[in-house]
Amino acid sequence: MTTQWFPTSHRAVCLLGVPLLCLFATRTPALAQTLTDLQTADAPLVLKAQGSFFIGGEKVEQTENELGNLAPGGHITINQMYVRYMVPGNGNNVPVVMVHGATLTGKSWETTPDGRMGWDEYFVRRGHPVYVPDQIGRGRSGFNQAVFNNVRAGTAPASSQAPWLRFSDENVWPNFRFGLKPGAPYPDTQFPVSAVDELSKQAVPDVNRGLPAPTPTIAALSELADQLNGAVLMGHSQSGSFPLAAALLNPAVTKGLVLLEPGTCPATYTADDIAVLAKVPLLVVFGDYRDTPTGISALPSWQDRFVACQALIGRITAAGGQAEMLAPPDAALRGNSHMIMQDRNSLQVADMILRWIDQRVQPVAARN
Amino acid sequence: MTTQWFPTSHRAVCLLGVPLLCLFATRTPALAQTLTDLQTADAPLVLKAQGSFFIGGEKVEQTENELGNLAPGGHITINQMYVRYMVPGNGNNVPVVMVHGATLTGKSWETTPDGRMGWDEYFVRRGHPVYVPDQIGRGRSGFNQAVFNNVRAGTAPASSQAPWLRFSDENVWPNFRFGLKPGAPYPDTQFPVSAVDELSKQAVPDVNRGLPAPTPTIAALSELADQLNGAVLMGHSQSGSFPLAAALLNPAVTKGLVLLEPGTCPATYTADDIAVLAKVPLLVVFGDYRDTPTGISALPSWQDRFVACQALIGRITAAGGQAEMLAPPDAALRGNSHMIMQDRNSLQVADMILRWIDQRVQPVAARN
Repeated sequence: MTTQWFPTSHRAVCLLGVPLLCLFATRTPALAQTLTDLQTADAPLVLKAQGSFFIGGEKVEQTENELGNLAPGGHITINQMYVRYMVPGNGNNVPVVMVHGATLTGKSWETTPDGRMGWDEYFVRRGHPVYVPDQIGRGRSGFNQAVFNNVRAGTAPASSQAPWLRFSDENVWPNFRFGLKPGAPYPDTQFPVSAVDELSKQAVPDVNRGLPAPTPTIAALSELADQLNGAVLMGHSQSGSFPLAAALLNPAVTKGLVLLEPGTCPATYTADDIAVLAKVPLLVVFGDYRDTPTGISALPSWQDRFVACQALIGRITAAGGQAEMLAPPDAALRGNSHMIMQDRNSLQVADMILRWIDQRVQPVAARN
Repeated sequence: MTTQWFPTSHRAVCLLGVPLLCLFATRTPALAQTLTDLQTADAPLVLKAQGSFFIGGEKVEQTENELGNLAPGGHITINQMYVRYMVPGNGNNVPVVMVHGATLTGKSWETTPDGRMGWDEYFVRRGHPVYVPDQIGRGRSGFNQAVFNNVRAGTAPASSQAPWLRFSDENVWPNFRFGLKPGAPYPDTQFPVSAVDELSKQAVPDVNRGLPAPTPTIAALSELADQLNGAVLMGHSQSGSFPLAAALLNPAVTKGLVLLEPGTCPATYTADDIAVLAKVPLLVVFGDYRDTPTGISALPSWQDRFVACQALIGRITAAGGQAEMLAPPDAALRGNSHMIMQDRNSLQVADMILRWIDQRVQPVAARN
């Protein structure tokens, strides 16, 4: 199928930062891809099973007001984690759990913004059962709404409700490293910038600061890996360190850890923590253009995070573990962005990770 | 695989309404199904394509505070509709769009609470491409968070933020017609009540009252049907009337309308509206035990809604249209609940709907 992308338009001009036009059009339809932009693979996808389920959750009792005044108060479930899965018809490789980053959902791993196959399907086609959660607090996992209804009723102070986080499109360009400013991509960027508005649609408000700490998503990931009899946990960005935290809860079931552009590689782990992490193969992946000049992005530098991850890899390796950095630029693969699973060469990067899994991760007994 | 369900437990006792125990345990882990409860079909599922995309959306400019103070203000996309799809490897029947009800997401149509195949997969196995959206405002479609952050900052009154709606488990039992009170199912209920806690996990907070009116989901459904070159639109409960509203926007692309237990069948349609609706085959489906005694449920009677739908069917039929009521109890199929797509006999009901589609809905040209 053909891919017809976004001519320069009213909205695009606004995005490019012409304030006068924006002034007259702060609410305009977003140009959309259409169904004909979605690519169909050459070979059918054969699944042994697909579906969805929940991990975790707790019952709480809430008042009529906390439930939005539809009916009398009572019990609801909160802090459950939605998981969608696909099990390949052929192949019994280690299951892979793919966790999205801040202000995003499991959609990150599905069809790319420009309509290509997502990593969810690609890993299945390579024989891995794939499990894609929505982090607790977002997407189909929902969140605990009680405080917002209490604030609305005046029974709780406005400051008691957590902020809802979103990244602006203007902030995404330098922070996700498509280019130093909106509409000015790096010449060799791998992100399909003509479809950047489709990435904008993937964002949902993020109530992470209103969740219990640490986020219950971490325990849910550990529980999921346990139920799978072992899995590779893959995190991205804000969830990049979750595989580490889940491994510390139950290293026996985390068969491999893949940290894609993690927001943090903690320096605070004790020697005991490192000894546990040294039992599980670890791969950290970072793209290109990490060293954004000061003042361009309002957010911390990715190069600083890269350096912190190298330090963690050093500690784990010194403790006898197998921890490695995969930086495609080091292999002369230039231009990868923060959304590396959506980049134009995303399947090439996936192949590098799949090779690492083949080489480093022990096979697990099949669940079904 | 075996299905081991929920022994009587602390939480279950609480759910059954023993107030003293609830008093001491208002926050307890919800008993969970495990992965081994998920059933695997006998035959593999062969897909020509699967993935996800967005319909609609608009760009708005928001302040730093409205975006949660992560970075300077800028543009984001709101009111886009997430859609997941599966296209069968064999079969080219009319596409079916399945829209969920209040406080729920597209999960409604996926794996049932007790681990059986959802209608999404079943319709695909019967040769229909299936498209499952999350309504705008929920799940992976997100919502506009600005007002909540303005209230938090004190720049908007608390009353300006919409309530977040949830149904309590206690309310779900009579309202979804599993039984007159929690833990006391109708003897012949078709809902898998041993797995009712898994339904509880499917709920997410519902900000519907904060959306533009009518909800932009309706225009997005019409746009989706258009891009599909025609589709059957299926709504449930709160979205039960959406197929009617979408048909009025563009009857040429709505090839059939299926209203599952609709919350409303409007009596306000003009003669012109009815003349348009008479062009599109319509099926309304209602389950059993609709006439809940007064005072049991805090919500309106389903029998009243059934009667309103019969009246609408009468008007459309009188105008020369093909409009029909499918009430399984009339075919001696007893005990169906409001969550008819999750009932134990869900595939039997699906077969009735599939037969209706075969008989009433014109084939459409394949999209791909």
